[in-house]
Amino acid sequence: MSIDERIRQLRELMRERKIDAYIIPTSDPHQSEYLADYYKTREFISGFTGSAGTALVTLNEALVWTDSRYFIQASKELARSEFKLMKMGVEGYPSLLEYLDENISEFGKIAFDGNTYSVKAYKQLSDNIGSRILITDVDYISDIWKTRPALGKDPVWIMDEEYAGYSLKEKIGKVRDIMEQKSFDYSFVGSPEDISYLLNIRGKDVDYNPVVLSYLLIGKDTLDLCIDEDKLKASVREYLENNGIKIHPYEAIFRLLSKIPGKNRIYLDPERTNVRIYDSINSNVKISQGINISTWMKAVKSDVEIENIKKAYLKDGLALVKFFSWLEVGAKTGSLNELLASKKLHDIRKEDEDFIEDSFETIAGYKENAAIVHYAPSASGSKTIRDEGMILIDSGAHYKMGTTDITRTLALGKVNENEKIDYTLVLKSFITLFLARFKDKTNGQRLDALAKYPLWQKGKDFFHGTGHGVGFVLTVHEGPQRISERDDNEFVENMTTSIEPGLYIEGSHGIRIENEAYVKRDFENEFGKFNKFESLTYLPIDTRPIKIEMLSREEIDWLNAYNKKTYEKLAPYLEGADLEYLKGSCKEI
Amino acid sequence: MSIDERIRQLRELMRERKIDAYIIPTSDPHQSEYLADYYKTREFISGFTGSAGTALVTLNEALVWTDSRYFIQASKELARSEFKLMKMGVEGYPSLLEYLDENISEFGKIAFDGNTYSVKAYKQLSDNIGSRILITDVDYISDIWKTRPALGKDPVWIMDEEYAGYSLKEKIGKVRDIMEQKSFDYSFVGSPEDISYLLNIRGKDVDYNPVVLSYLLIGKDTLDLCIDEDKLKASVREYLENNGIKIHPYEAIFRLLSKIPGKNRIYLDPERTNVRIYDSINSNVKISQGINISTWMKAVKSDVEIENIKKAYLKDGLALVKFFSWLEVGAKTGSLNELLASKKLHDIRKEDEDFIEDSFETIAGYKENAAIVHYAPSASGSKTIRDEGMILIDSGAHYKMGTTDITRTLALGKVNENEKIDYTLVLKSFITLFLARFKDKTNGQRLDALAKYPLWQKGKDFFHGTGHGVGFVLTVHEGPQRISERDDNEFVENMTTSIEPGLYIEGSHGIRIENEAYVKRDFENEFGKFNKFESLTYLPIDTRPIKIEMLSREEIDWLNAYNKKTYEKLAPYLEGADLEYLKGSCKEI
Repeated sequence: MSIDERIRQLRELMRERKIDAYIIPTSDPHQSEYLADYYKTREFISGFTGSAGTALVTLNEALVWTDSRYFIQASKELARSEFKLMKMGVEGYPSLLEYLDENISEFGKIAFDGNTYSVKAYKQLSDNIGSRILITDVDYISDIWKTRPALGKDPVWIMDEEYAGYSLKEKIGKVRDIMEQKSFDYSFVGSPEDISYLLNIRGKDVDYNPVVLSYLLIGKDTLDLCIDEDKLKASVREYLENNGIKIHPYEAIFRLLSKIPGKNRIYLDPERTNVRIYDSINSNVKISQGINISTWMKAVKSDVEIENIKKAYLKDGLALVKFFSWLEVGAKTGSLNELLASKKLHDIRKEDEDFIEDSFETIAGYKENAAIVHYAPSASGSKTIRDEGMILIDSGAHYKMGTTDITRTLALGKVNENEKIDYTLVLKSFITLFLARFKDKTNGQRLDALAKYPLWQKGKDFFHGTGHGVGFVLTVHEGPQRISERDDNEFVENMTTSIEPGLYIEGSHGIRIENEAYVKRDFENEFGKFNKFESLTYLPIDTRPIKIEMLSREEIDWLNAYNKKTYEKLAPYLEGADLEYLKGSCKEI
Repeated sequence: MSIDERIRQLRELMRERKIDAYIIPTSDPHQSEYLADYYKTREFISGFTGSAGTALVTLNEALVWTDSRYFIQASKELARSEFKLMKMGVEGYPSLLEYLDENISEFGKIAFDGNTYSVKAYKQLSDNIGSRILITDVDYISDIWKTRPALGKDPVWIMDEEYAGYSLKEKIGKVRDIMEQKSFDYSFVGSPEDISYLLNIRGKDVDYNPVVLSYLLIGKDTLDLCIDEDKLKASVREYLENNGIKIHPYEAIFRLLSKIPGKNRIYLDPERTNVRIYDSINSNVKISQGINISTWMKAVKSDVEIENIKKAYLKDGLALVKFFSWLEVGAKTGSLNELLASKKLHDIRKEDEDFIEDSFETIAGYKENAAIVHYAPSASGSKTIRDEGMILIDSGAHYKMGTTDITRTLALGKVNENEKIDYTLVLKSFITLFLARFKDKTNGQRLDALAKYPLWQKGKDFFHGTGHGVGFVLTVHEGPQRISERDDNEFVENMTTSIEPGLYIEGSHGIRIENEAYVKRDFENEFGKFNKFESLTYLPIDTRPIKIEMLSREEIDWLNAYNKKTYEKLAPYLEGADLEYLKGSCKEI
């Protein structure tokens, strides 16, 4: 069925209920970052395959809003249909809200599937549409999408306490302590990564994120899990039930919530609770809103998790050294391209017995492709890799004992002066955070400023976050803390974060260097508690594109010590050409 | 009358109206930072003379809450009466709100003078006292304080447009533009510094702050000024009336506000509007709250103001060189003390024809006294200054063409290794911000992190802001922007700020180095707009206590260039010993 035919059918359904505008966001009932195929409704209706965007169909227009990362891709993909591209953040393009305000009449009807709208997004919409009417109980895409993929039935598995550090009972106990302090009778948890964390379970419902799509309702002494029961093997069901969990069908959550008696107080996260869930709560139940309690808990890793993550990075470091060793040989043959390189990296990682899956789609950008921040090579447009210029590889994996996310930029041969300057600036920014000592509870935006200082001095900047939390065999982007311009979250001991400054020169080159680190107490004195970032990642940092005169003595010392330690950690497990490659990469400068 | 007698009389008045607790904050009807003597009610009732604190009298207890700066002073001053010291931020001491919650019965009555409570503070209180009753229309201190000082009658004077840059009409026009955009019919202005700024008038109602205590009501085409008319000379009255201002008695503001017809929208600043003002507005008038419009306007200086401030700093630089030249000779005699030094500095400044008054009480802390952040020498406890150790002088003045605020720490003779290390660290922190290039709209907390980096690296920190805005012949501490841990305000072109890192070692030494600077566009490129701080202050930075090996080449270069430029600016106006002193102080290192 063509896209235009899909639009036609949608409009027919809209006319039946006199609906003026239908919104199809990029979302699932859990407001996940990555979507199961079943929930790729925006892609179905519009043909646009990017990871972010919102489609709007009115009776006479069809539009997709997306951000600058996807302008080129979206304009190509949308050209096949009536859909028009609305460039977010570009002058001359109204926002979705502005568009609705200008084009939908005063008492017009705006509809969407309430399952796919968070309480927060709904509020923002309803606060801005005046007297127009919102309809949230329609799901037209299901009616049109005859070949809609099924939801996964892959089995749920238990994460052993030896990896997780705390048992299900301990974690739920901590949540209940906070519920008691705050006088919450219930806590509704709609985010799969929080549920997976709390119950020490993992699944395969979503690519790259080993989470379990489900809902959890935590009471003072009840635990109700709503999940497709086909995913539960007998042993998993037994584990859950032995821990006091009552198992219900996935859709039972609405009934469970509707049965909470009045005067009880329920806590929920407005960014991770959808409108249908919210509407199913009785109006005389008191609702408190805020970030999920467990989101704070899982951001601070247990010591056991930290030790396990180190093991995962050892595995990943070895895989990447083997890959880079292979890549540098291959680059000389002229028969290697970005896509082949991505596949090879996946194959090398897969050899490890504890490998689960990649933690996100590998970015392998050669030369000017590296300047496209979210570039992923495709079968049609993959660039041939040669022994010159730079390549940026950003990749990661889930192992049974932890998740990785690493970026390196390598000089495959001759690089020019500007590339060297930019590489060295990014490296300075990166090292700044590893050299930094900072007060306990310093927030992400203050750490971000420290990392930006060396770039700003040279009039340069990059436009993505400097760091994000990394989940423990969960989502690779994990909040709430980020090292970024707008972050107010306090960094405390055992929080993990990526450190990944970059520089991107359109049409020329792109550089990013990324390790994961955790916050470690350095010391306490009369001025307070001081922390440092301790690297979890050990993988050589390429010294070939460095302009050494731009580095301070302290920076050079840090780099030499880091590469030396990397050698000591990885060398015992490598041999032959791979060991030689490691040795060469870790040479002192 | 003894303090205990004052408490007794207050309790008698409280019993008449069955009041359980009476709060006496440090405030006036305008929520000013500095109070006219008339408003020093908290000092009157408690005997505590510090600049910050809140007194509470219940039927059986009398308490003063204050912060760590004043613990020593307050415990001494409060020991003379029933009053007990409540240490803010110290474990074991409940906050005022916690104390009220624990000690005042469920329907108890809590009272205070609504004139001295801002809308914001009132809201915070009322949100946290449950079903207790707040009474805001009592002023018991006036009843008890028989010898209460009168409010000042000093004449208002006009700030010439040649200094201010914009006329009254232009400034009011800008406010009205924003009022129109936001659909405000009225804007109430309760802060004297905003009124003084907008009307280009100054006064002498408060020590150190040449502001005019008054209220202003800006309508779409009306301007009502409520002020003690005795302060207006004929020429000033004429100037105001010629600019369309209607002049009313000070207390007329309540009547004016009560007469605004329903359905109008009034804008007010909840931090600078008192409860009685708020209550006088009709309930069917719509109220919008936010920071005063002019607070943003005056934070960004006009080019004319910037040029004038430079002239003020030239005058102040000359005064301080003369003072330091005198001080270093005097230190050798053994007959100099901190208080004499403060007085001498005032006398030197006063010689300038454009000098108005000091902009705050001079801090002259010798040796360990410099570690007391808000130290001011007193007649009884002034320390003898000798030719050894360090002295910290933080002072400033209002001149007709601008306000200054400068701190220098000088080595008067031998200083020890720790003093040198700390001095050099503070200097590094100071230079960091002057070397920094930063994106336009970088906020204060991100700039603060940059300044903290060199101190944190050595496990050190200080606990006051790194910088504050400086008013133009107004208050020396001017918002909204600050360089501090909690600041979210964006720094934009022509904003001024002090840059004043420090280090304080109790019982040993204290260091602070402070210049004022303004934000200047450095350049714009594909990565955005980049700004720098340009110094307004030129006064030698002492190089004697520097450990040169702790400075980078870039830092040394900056320091030498700064001292050289200082010499070039000041030398033409100095002669004899003062010129020699300047020459010595500006020597390259």
